[in-house]
Amino acid sequence: MASSSSSNLLALILLFQPCFLFLSPASAAGRFSLPRKPDPSNAHATARWLASQNSWGVLSTISSDLGGSPFGNVVSYSDGVPGDGRGVPYFYLTQLDPTARDALKDERASFTISEYPLGTCKKIDPENPTCAKLTLSGKLKLVETNSSEAKFALSALFAKHAEMKTWPKNHKFQIFKLDIENLFLIDWFGGAKPLSPAQYLNPGMDLPPLISRA
Amino acid sequence: MASSSSSNLLALILLFQPCFLFLSPASAAGRFSLPRKPDPSNAHATARWLASQNSWGVLSTISSDLGGSPFGNVVSYSDGVPGDGRGVPYFYLTQLDPTARDALKDERASFTISEYPLGTCKKIDPENPTCAKLTLSGKLKLVETNSSEAKFALSALFAKHAEMKTWPKNHKFQIFKLDIENLFLIDWFGGAKPLSPAQYLNPGMDLPPLISRA
Repeated sequence: MASSSSSNLLALILLFQPCFLFLSPASAAGRFSLPRKPDPSNAHATARWLASQNSWGVLSTISSDLGGSPFGNVVSYSDGVPGDGRGVPYFYLTQLDPTARDALKDERASFTISEYPLGTCKKIDPENPTCAKLTLSGKLKLVETNSSEAKFALSALFAKHAEMKTWPKNHKFQIFKLDIENLFLIDWFGGAKPLSPAQYLNPGMDLPPLISRA
Repeated sequence: MASSSSSNLLALILLFQPCFLFLSPASAAGRFSLPRKPDPSNAHATARWLASQNSWGVLSTISSDLGGSPFGNVVSYSDGVPGDGRGVPYFYLTQLDPTARDALKDERASFTISEYPLGTCKKIDPENPTCAKLTLSGKLKLVETNSSEAKFALSALFAKHAEMKTWPKNHKFQIFKLDIENLFLIDWFGGAKPLSPAQYLNPGMDLPPLISRA
């Protein structure tokens, strides 16, 4: 019996250990849990949850290369160190890439993120309104070098994107931020939720407790 | 010894079985394997691989609500039934949503997808150029109702997004497609790859063999 119990214990240990190999990409970046998704009735909390939990999205600008057409580009971002997201997305961009060049000619931009890559939509389709999505629109601006905001942004970016620290110096990466003027949040049936930048940036938000990603 | 072997076998079975609980959202949609990522030297195959393996992306339009600013929206899409992607993204949109309304006023649009949600970038950052990203730019057009193209597109969409079949009829979903005029593919160091729409749409592409997503 003792031998059988040991074998069963071994089986149980083995049962869960290899699953770490199959965690989602976001989990591979070191986030093994995330705050519980807010109730859809709380638009402010849902939007801030999406912004704080995602690590990448699509940044759309007015393309100077394509005669003023919209141009969406995959970018990484951070709105704060883990557990202290503040809602404003900061980016680490090089003018070797069209997005930064576009913004320096025309600041109008939008930044779009989805709940889907967080894994919490499960089998719900990414376009289903209950799988939340957020578009922040406004002006994409350079953050002044050596400012306290630049220091905050760099800490926020490097905390979530450690490899940025090693990106080539001669690419001259610069910190940009989106000054938010409009929000488009879908997190339930019935269309976009009314949510102002002031409501979104309200620092008084409490996120619900942690849940396991699985 | 026989008893020990049975226990070890049990351990091995248990070892792998629960991992299905931790598969990525894309896997939850029924795709448990994907064709091997093409070599970065093959821009055409990489772009088509990204288009055929993803199920969602960000569709950017010129916003009529926001005075001509770019507006990116999370949408589902399909470029064909599984295993027979043809490169052109089809969308199922309602004019209750701003993206479809924008396109009917100004067709200029871009559609952006990333390798990151496929899981094959592993610990590579989403903005790292070796984690591939594709932006298709062109005109977002309505597909004529009851045409053979509409029939193809609907099969393609419903094959990858089964719940679309049940979406409310009174939302009047319509099929749109992106007529591709320009491609922006990053899949390695050294900037965007030169790739024309004709090269991208070339039907002669052979995808490499299947690999396990894990």
